[in-house]
Amino acid sequence: MKITSIIEKTVPLGSAIANSYINFSMMTGSIIAIVTDVVRDGKQIIGYGFNSIGRYACTSILRDRMIGKILNADPIDVYDEDMSNIDPFKVHKLLKKNEKPGGHGDRAHAVGAIDMAVWDVVAKIEKKPLYQVIGERFNNKLWSDKIYTYAAGGYYYETDSIERLKDELKKYIDQGFHDVKMKIGGADLKTDVKRIEAALSVVDGDGSRLMVDANGRYDMKAALECAIAIKDFGLKWYEEPLDPADFSSYAVIAEYYPGPIATGENLFSYEDARNLFRHGGLRPDRDYIQVDPPLSYGIIEFIKILNMMHYFGWANKNCIPHGGNLFCNHIVAGLKLGGNECYPGIFQPFGGFADGNIIEKSIVQLPNIPGIGYEAKSNLWKVLRQVV
Amino acid sequence: MKITSIIEKTVPLGSAIANSYINFSMMTGSIIAIVTDVVRDGKQIIGYGFNSIGRYACTSILRDRMIGKILNADPIDVYDEDMSNIDPFKVHKLLKKNEKPGGHGDRAHAVGAIDMAVWDVVAKIEKKPLYQVIGERFNNKLWSDKIYTYAAGGYYYETDSIERLKDELKKYIDQGFHDVKMKIGGADLKTDVKRIEAALSVVDGDGSRLMVDANGRYDMKAALECAIAIKDFGLKWYEEPLDPADFSSYAVIAEYYPGPIATGENLFSYEDARNLFRHGGLRPDRDYIQVDPPLSYGIIEFIKILNMMHYFGWANKNCIPHGGNLFCNHIVAGLKLGGNECYPGIFQPFGGFADGNIIEKSIVQLPNIPGIGYEAKSNLWKVLRQVV
Repeated sequence: MKITSIIEKTVPLGSAIANSYINFSMMTGSIIAIVTDVVRDGKQIIGYGFNSIGRYACTSILRDRMIGKILNADPIDVYDEDMSNIDPFKVHKLLKKNEKPGGHGDRAHAVGAIDMAVWDVVAKIEKKPLYQVIGERFNNKLWSDKIYTYAAGGYYYETDSIERLKDELKKYIDQGFHDVKMKIGGADLKTDVKRIEAALSVVDGDGSRLMVDANGRYDMKAALECAIAIKDFGLKWYEEPLDPADFSSYAVIAEYYPGPIATGENLFSYEDARNLFRHGGLRPDRDYIQVDPPLSYGIIEFIKILNMMHYFGWANKNCIPHGGNLFCNHIVAGLKLGGNECYPGIFQPFGGFADGNIIEKSIVQLPNIPGIGYEAKSNLWKVLRQVV
Repeated sequence: MKITSIIEKTVPLGSAIANSYINFSMMTGSIIAIVTDVVRDGKQIIGYGFNSIGRYACTSILRDRMIGKILNADPIDVYDEDMSNIDPFKVHKLLKKNEKPGGHGDRAHAVGAIDMAVWDVVAKIEKKPLYQVIGERFNNKLWSDKIYTYAAGGYYYETDSIERLKDELKKYIDQGFHDVKMKIGGADLKTDVKRIEAALSVVDGDGSRLMVDANGRYDMKAALECAIAIKDFGLKWYEEPLDPADFSSYAVIAEYYPGPIATGENLFSYEDARNLFRHGGLRPDRDYIQVDPPLSYGIIEFIKILNMMHYFGWANKNCIPHGGNLFCNHIVAGLKLGGNECYPGIFQPFGGFADGNIIEKSIVQLPNIPGIGYEAKSNLWKVLRQVV
């Protein structure tokens, strides 16, 4: 086989929403299409990827620095031994070549976007849904085709109210989500507590069905004050109270806050995630790790992080990635992780599930078609197929 | 005053050299020019910057994401109160707006490139060399106009030999450098020890005039083996033995290795540097911090890091930045840091000093002209003035 071209397209991803840290009106993303000369069932195989959601396009890193590493490589460094498919490990190694250690930011998202497209090709050539390929290669063939998901929303809007928030969360419950997540940290604590109480009323006052997400906004004092204010709600988790790299402070909050803490969506490498396990004081019996594979160099790096999690005493069920896209759904299903985020209605067309997928009690079925299955998500497919 | 335009130009920065981690043949960089409507001494003021050396251009981050934040901002968020100069704190805040926490990589270099150009404008409008502006604003007016420098070289070349290495280092001594640095970790330890012994012969067998740099290549076992192999040489420092974020392992090496350790050039934010101080076990009485301001969001972030260093018991003299460019020379002189790196002959025209500057016993004078003084470095000025 041969890759004939790799194309990057930068697209707007704006939403009129804000979390406590940023507003999303100017957000962008990078789409990657890997075009091959392989034909399956009469169709030329093209793999599609993008750099998750929420950290901007990485246009020139892809176009000027990464894509050429694959196109100019010796085929032995790209394809598997019998030259019948791409070897994702080899591509991962190629893309990391001539990159200095440290500084795992936009570069990690660029590599992650290519990795996503690579796995789409790999699974399409194998004629299997990606979760099966992942389960076969990395999870002793113990994949699933269903995953747990939850509705992440409750952002701050320019025109906002408690009623708007309640209506939004109710809509998610009506769509079949059992659990819902809302933003905090973008208002004063008293206001946020009122918003949380309103959200609780939507989930029958059951805190275990509600997550709150501070997006790294608080310093230690504010994180502690919030922890004390919300601890009796018995929430499903308290997400990113602190800067993602403020590991020692996480350890302190974990000692004070009895409920589950979730973090990791803004740690983009094995080395950075390792520091969370070493210094973050999180508790494998209750906390959640949210590393987002397409933001973090892709599946190969993620498997390395997962193996480290096991070393530190964590189970796969306590990993629930950030990002809310179909690709991560496959990773979650293939490795039987705890679940995957979903942003119903926002960050479209990149977030969400295949057309017609029904969510029942927060469980959703993955599309049983070769690859990631973007072809079965019409609003996204419309955008992707314009790239090639 | 008004900024009339901000231009990014991507330039090749290739050298036929390698350290233990990457080769530099495909290296690129981003130049920034901030054009203003201010005229001083009959000349329109334009500030120039670039994103240090060694981590690639950040073309689209600058063009599509950062530059517009300044050009589209309310003037009150860009200029000082009487609108007579740019306020670098305001620009720093603008550029960090709508950027999520964590992931301090290419983005930090992009902001750093703009910051460099901002300070060039600020000092030119004040008609002062930048070291004086920095000394007045951040160091109780205790600036210097001379700095300590050392020659960083000793890379691995495709055609290489012990003799080539010795000749190179001898050349640096002849140029007035008292101390020289060489790469290690790109060959087996036995070979590297022979290279070190050869280098020592160039500095009269005086280990305190030689630094070795592993560029983060070693794992713990290799770092420890090297530490044991080199500890009796009494070297000036042992640089980046481990991955820059492998803080716990630094703490272990620091317990075993009695001589100075240097690191920090691949930590690009306050939050990442804080983890080095918290978890890295380094010793303020002997070790060196090498954070590179233009790779790390620029001077504002660097001052924050320096204040943290003081909190952890470190003195300014134990900070010797990575990067080897004129801008960092001004920071070192203005804040009376320990010194600055220099790459004689490589990474041209971006590295090195103003024309005709004489290095005596590793001390060099800075150009006493307004701004950073790129106009006094003809090979660099030739490149910069083509941008605008």
